[in-house]
Amino acid sequence: MKQGWQLNRKSEIPLYLQIKHLLKEKIRLGEWSIGTTLPSQRKLAQLLDVNRSTVVEAYEELMAEGLIEGVQGKGTRVVNNTWNVIQSEIDWNSYVIESTYKPSKPLIQKINEAEFSPSIIRLGTGELGKELLPIGAMNDLISNLKIEAHHLGYEEPKGSLELRQAVCKHVQAFGIHTSPSSVLIVSGALQAFQLIASGLLKQRASILAESPSYVFSINAFQSANVQLHNVPIDQIAKNPSILAKLKAQHNASLFYTIPTFHNPTGFLYTEEQRQNIVHACQSSQLPIVEDDVYRELWIDTPPPPTMKSMDQSGNILYIGSLSKLVSPGLRIGWIIGPETVINRLADLKMQVDYGASSLSQAVAERWLSSPDYYNEHVNWVRISLKERRAHFLHLLDTYFSSFATWSVPTGSFYVWVRLQKELSLHRLFDVALKNGILINPGSIYEERDASYLRLSYSYESKERIEQGMKQLASCIQSMIG
Amino acid sequence: MKQGWQLNRKSEIPLYLQIKHLLKEKIRLGEWSIGTTLPSQRKLAQLLDVNRSTVVEAYEELMAEGLIEGVQGKGTRVVNNTWNVIQSEIDWNSYVIESTYKPSKPLIQKINEAEFSPSIIRLGTGELGKELLPIGAMNDLISNLKIEAHHLGYEEPKGSLELRQAVCKHVQAFGIHTSPSSVLIVSGALQAFQLIASGLLKQRASILAESPSYVFSINAFQSANVQLHNVPIDQIAKNPSILAKLKAQHNASLFYTIPTFHNPTGFLYTEEQRQNIVHACQSSQLPIVEDDVYRELWIDTPPPPTMKSMDQSGNILYIGSLSKLVSPGLRIGWIIGPETVINRLADLKMQVDYGASSLSQAVAERWLSSPDYYNEHVNWVRISLKERRAHFLHLLDTYFSSFATWSVPTGSFYVWVRLQKELSLHRLFDVALKNGILINPGSIYEERDASYLRLSYSYESKERIEQGMKQLASCIQSMIG
Repeated sequence: MKQGWQLNRKSEIPLYLQIKHLLKEKIRLGEWSIGTTLPSQRKLAQLLDVNRSTVVEAYEELMAEGLIEGVQGKGTRVVNNTWNVIQSEIDWNSYVIESTYKPSKPLIQKINEAEFSPSIIRLGTGELGKELLPIGAMNDLISNLKIEAHHLGYEEPKGSLELRQAVCKHVQAFGIHTSPSSVLIVSGALQAFQLIASGLLKQRASILAESPSYVFSINAFQSANVQLHNVPIDQIAKNPSILAKLKAQHNASLFYTIPTFHNPTGFLYTEEQRQNIVHACQSSQLPIVEDDVYRELWIDTPPPPTMKSMDQSGNILYIGSLSKLVSPGLRIGWIIGPETVINRLADLKMQVDYGASSLSQAVAERWLSSPDYYNEHVNWVRISLKERRAHFLHLLDTYFSSFATWSVPTGSFYVWVRLQKELSLHRLFDVALKNGILINPGSIYEERDASYLRLSYSYESKERIEQGMKQLASCIQSMIG
Repeated sequence: MKQGWQLNRKSEIPLYLQIKHLLKEKIRLGEWSIGTTLPSQRKLAQLLDVNRSTVVEAYEELMAEGLIEGVQGKGTRVVNNTWNVIQSEIDWNSYVIESTYKPSKPLIQKINEAEFSPSIIRLGTGELGKELLPIGAMNDLISNLKIEAHHLGYEEPKGSLELRQAVCKHVQAFGIHTSPSSVLIVSGALQAFQLIASGLLKQRASILAESPSYVFSINAFQSANVQLHNVPIDQIAKNPSILAKLKAQHNASLFYTIPTFHNPTGFLYTEEQRQNIVHACQSSQLPIVEDDVYRELWIDTPPPPTMKSMDQSGNILYIGSLSKLVSPGLRIGWIIGPETVINRLADLKMQVDYGASSLSQAVAERWLSSPDYYNEHVNWVRISLKERRAHFLHLLDTYFSSFATWSVPTGSFYVWVRLQKELSLHRLFDVALKNGILINPGSIYEERDASYLRLSYSYESKERIEQGMKQLASCIQSMIG
């Protein structure tokens, strides 16, 4: 909303009139259609760096002209437009409200919005920070990329053959032996869920997922009318046969799991647990979606083999991505599975967006096929995460030990911090945000528990993390009194 | 399927055993799960360049081992796998069949598949051919792109601000005055339809569309349970008030139109027709989706203004794209509309794929902000299309005039050719394909009429177009006798 909101402080036109003109233009051009809620006077004053009374004056004039209307407790809305008061208007709000896809959860919307304020310290963000991205290597790879016609045209439905070949080679190190025809390139792992939800599941299907889980923070399955049943992650680890029982009980179609550096808990299944889970699912005919996007981010020792490497019967759909290790912005991931499934999802991918960016695919292929760059980067990321983790644990000890517990993650970005006293995580989120700190409350990942935070040591600089953790601790302490 | 299918002709292992081994590996690795249909013996023999009898031998051995089974009239299927014959297996086919999203129409699937055989002459493809893509310019822009952290990270929900600013500037030339907050970057126009279908329309909503129309060739709306009602394009042109009538009759939520160089007919609404349509829709509160991806491809004179430029009330959602003029592979398009709509669709875009490739967005921004490259390219494309059109019309005169009619397009890629005798377009498609020619039958774009073909002069070289047109004419003549 900020764009184009510039006042000319040297102009002879009074500021309130300039504001009035700005708002009127928005309405006249149809950018703010009838029914649109205007920013609050306070917020607009802040945005434009003027006194609130200046904004009040502008709003009053527009009200007098019958363009906007204030409704008690509901803010100010556009009710008309300048050029023709009797002209009929589309009520877009009702289109939005009645449509099928769920909006993001309110907390997720707030996070998405806050992420783009540069001053905010992002303590919850699950990405590599700027210093950890392979900017130099990417510059080399991209400037050496000789653009040819096929980089500008469409790729095959399953994605560029060269990239799929590179993926096949890449996952061999994870014990997965497959051929390009069983690989589909997707625009990130999130899209993989979308394709699975609408390409493999029937209306009102059920799927099982660990609780807590990343999957509860998104609507990919819910918006396709698929129900998620959560299974406590420690129960699965102890007794995988619970999956068979719940499969029967809910007639579940899939089990979604993040077995390696689980998001948000950082949990890692042992090799034996993996085998037991694969076996339980195999014998009860419950397919597994193995979300393995964090595998390369081990810190101490390499993780146990993939579940997919234990799969002898096409029972597992395996998801990988470049987003966590290399570049979220490339939007490149992959699904590996039986050809029946891959063919179906490839047809669907063509229907939703005609394939991932050919340019991103070319760069991804170069990246996977350049072991020098790859290895140097991954080693550097592991060393940096180790340092960052140590620093973060030290901060937790220093500032959080009186009111929280946590366990030490062995890879990836997250510490799943448990607050010993329950408190309103929504309120904590708001209070922290007011103090310039963005956190991911645990309630995003499970509905019941109100005592966890997902904190991340990967995104911000150490200095900002320290500043943020201090601040966050004092927010929490002020709330628990 | 072709990948990894290599026989070693110098080996001492007989070819049929090599083939058997290849197939067995596919089954063993779970790439061909139980229920998967194997390629026909004829097709496989062709693919591997062996005698059919060699393939038959391999199949027979696998049948003897109980791994595959031939069912009369239904082909050969995987019924078991090697390592454990009593092991239970997921029936992925039933997952696919029962899931919600429709598969592509069979003819579209065939086209998608045939497009990647290099020897096929593609007479229906609506893209610029290799020689018309700006490969040199793109090489310059990309190698000069200084990669920074933000190119590798996520962009804002609506897309990169720089790109949205460039889009705002770009569409000013089309009479559209808007600000970046009313622009959403999408991964091509096709995704725009997906977002509109699930973000603005309710279950069982109706939309109106020209008949014929590109929109009937895709499932974006149908898979979201939205019904398409077709309105003959000449009726709309003559009497736009029919839209108001049909809106009332079907309680329609939108009118989808391609007013400029319509796909597939090449039709162009006059300025007056546009005004009348905009007015009719405005006064009956029927929003318009204006698909304007072909605008820059005029050949003779610039087209009339956009409908969006006549929109005073946020009634029109405007869709543009770089795919038709610059690069389909970048997967970059945009939607311009009221903020209420754009905010909603941006939230949805974040939910389906976390945004378009940041790298593609950066290149798109560079492209739109480099008038020298842009203008040189667009001029060259116009000159080339003019030449190609002349050549194509000459071929039509020479080879098609005894059995077909057509009108001369004033822009874009397509000639909508009417066959004077009705014949089975499906059969013609198959016959042409056997002769190495890929066409787009008109039946893809409308269900009733069986007498049109969408031919394109933009994709193949002139030599191949000539060869293809000759061949196609003889296929048609052999069918009409």
